[in-house]
Amino acid sequence: MKKFINNVDHLLVESLSGFASAHSDLVTLHLEPTYLTRKNGQKSKVAIISGGGSGHEPLHAGYIGFGMLDAACPGHVFTSPTPDQMIAAAEAVQSDKGVLFIVKNYAGDVMNFEMAAEMLPFENATVLTSDDCAVINSTYTTGRRGVAGTMIVEKCVGSLAETDADLQACVALGEKVNQHTASIGVALTSCTVPAAGRPTFDINDTEIEMGVGIHGEPGRKREAMREADDIVKEMVDAILADFKAREIGTKSEALLLINGFGATPLMELYLIYNTAAKLLEESGIKISRSLVGNYVTALDMAGASITLCLLDDEIKQHWDSPVHTAALRWGM
Amino acid sequence: MKKFINNVDHLLVESLSGFASAHSDLVTLHLEPTYLTRKNGQKSKVAIISGGGSGHEPLHAGYIGFGMLDAACPGHVFTSPTPDQMIAAAEAVQSDKGVLFIVKNYAGDVMNFEMAAEMLPFENATVLTSDDCAVINSTYTTGRRGVAGTMIVEKCVGSLAETDADLQACVALGEKVNQHTASIGVALTSCTVPAAGRPTFDINDTEIEMGVGIHGEPGRKREAMREADDIVKEMVDAILADFKAREIGTKSEALLLINGFGATPLMELYLIYNTAAKLLEESGIKISRSLVGNYVTALDMAGASITLCLLDDEIKQHWDSPVHTAALRWGM
Repeated sequence: MKKFINNVDHLLVESLSGFASAHSDLVTLHLEPTYLTRKNGQKSKVAIISGGGSGHEPLHAGYIGFGMLDAACPGHVFTSPTPDQMIAAAEAVQSDKGVLFIVKNYAGDVMNFEMAAEMLPFENATVLTSDDCAVINSTYTTGRRGVAGTMIVEKCVGSLAETDADLQACVALGEKVNQHTASIGVALTSCTVPAAGRPTFDINDTEIEMGVGIHGEPGRKREAMREADDIVKEMVDAILADFKAREIGTKSEALLLINGFGATPLMELYLIYNTAAKLLEESGIKISRSLVGNYVTALDMAGASITLCLLDDEIKQHWDSPVHTAALRWGM
Repeated sequence: MKKFINNVDHLLVESLSGFASAHSDLVTLHLEPTYLTRKNGQKSKVAIISGGGSGHEPLHAGYIGFGMLDAACPGHVFTSPTPDQMIAAAEAVQSDKGVLFIVKNYAGDVMNFEMAAEMLPFENATVLTSDDCAVINSTYTTGRRGVAGTMIVEKCVGSLAETDADLQACVALGEKVNQHTASIGVALTSCTVPAAGRPTFDINDTEIEMGVGIHGEPGRKREAMREADDIVKEMVDAILADFKAREIGTKSEALLLINGFGATPLMELYLIYNTAAKLLEESGIKISRSLVGNYVTALDMAGASITLCLLDDEIKQHWDSPVHTAALRWGM
């Protein structure tokens, strides 16, 4: 394992310190417990907080700022943060309008955010994201995993929270976006967790892991490596089958997110976009919004995920609205 | 080699087609010859054109748009584009104010852009970027290589060109930014050129290539892998020594760019930022602008470069001005 690290135990704090220093106009880093808050937050709004294990950067701290998150709680790599982090973050950014936690559906995250929610002396609610249609239950989850679609939920709910919206409205929008979003990933290589020092799983040069999770969890099956169009078609078919099984009509506009897991060149991500967009358009979906890049990563994994978010006027309005964070910025 | 590719011969066009489709509000793709132009360009301005081998995405097409490039000419992976591409691009975007080519200093690119420049029937000029302080001459260059600093030159000159500036003023600013910029890279792994199908160079698990080029060219020396702080210190020292040797005072404000080569997680890039910023501040430089991410890549290479651009009021103004491209966007 070769990584830019001094000491595995200090990696998280050194990296967060660099992040807070590089984006000192946007965020403040707090330690013991560890959380980051937004600078220049507007006080009277629903506070939007997310968090989870590190290693998925720019998720979540990269999405702190106007139109998205008020705070983020990073755990160690692929490890849930603890309730004291969430409680401290909530106390720092809450106003009289309550706190909304956006949590990826993994058992550890769900348990820790639930404990924090119960201990908070003020109004709060949680939206669980579960956009991964690859598998139902997995190593870390009961139910579907939350993956790249999480950032779309954060963007839309964050936009709504900048208005006069109340907590219930934010919950309703978050749940709607999650329901109208489906994702699936594929790995060409494993990721390597620094503390482990070796690849999470073995995979040879002729194989891919279809439906892989963002922690390197097993997917649907180990398949033969083959040309990109064939891999992408299988992924697009899985997403369309998922919407069909959930009885959600896909004859609409959509946002197509091609997300790199950390080690896949942009050239390849755009090639995937090219094929996925064509297949989706052929199936009657109008791709009217696009995002291609590393948005929800799995450390140094070579691989990518495809996320489709079906748009109605409300979701589109909140996706398009101005945002100013380290990793997503437009309109300001 | 596992990559998301259908056929090596079609990779470039399929990837560019995906790029143009994902960013259809910003760019138009032209084929035979291959170049991309900006949509909604303002006609009466100096036309800013760049280009070079592909594999460095988002450079250059990702920087087409308001406040940066009017056109880009992508060659095949790590291969110079040809004069017909540049001539077609120049004809498509030129106005009565002339054309400025921004070219990374590699022998093939220089030769091809020179041929195009000679054949153009209207006023044009070229700024060569040469920010890499690692080596003087290399596999592909006579003189210093142009690397990540190129995007800073493109940003600043692109900003100036949106004003009423003439060609000479754009050249002068481009040369000033290039002169006040120094970069050095380090590789933990090789990259793999798709058409070659195997890593460009061999490197084992205990080694790094200090001063590597963005095509995997040899750097200063093969060194032992060690903790990040020590690697970063060597890189920062090389940059400071370069400014000193060129008699450029560094007691000023600066922009610090930590650039990933394609396969290095953001967590590690921010850790590098943390150390580099501290070392530079200790040396008397005030880091007032920051950028951390994959901006000038080397396909799937694990590694990173550090770029320091010394800021005066003019450079700062043009760095800060609004920009709207696929890969860099702020203020609009």
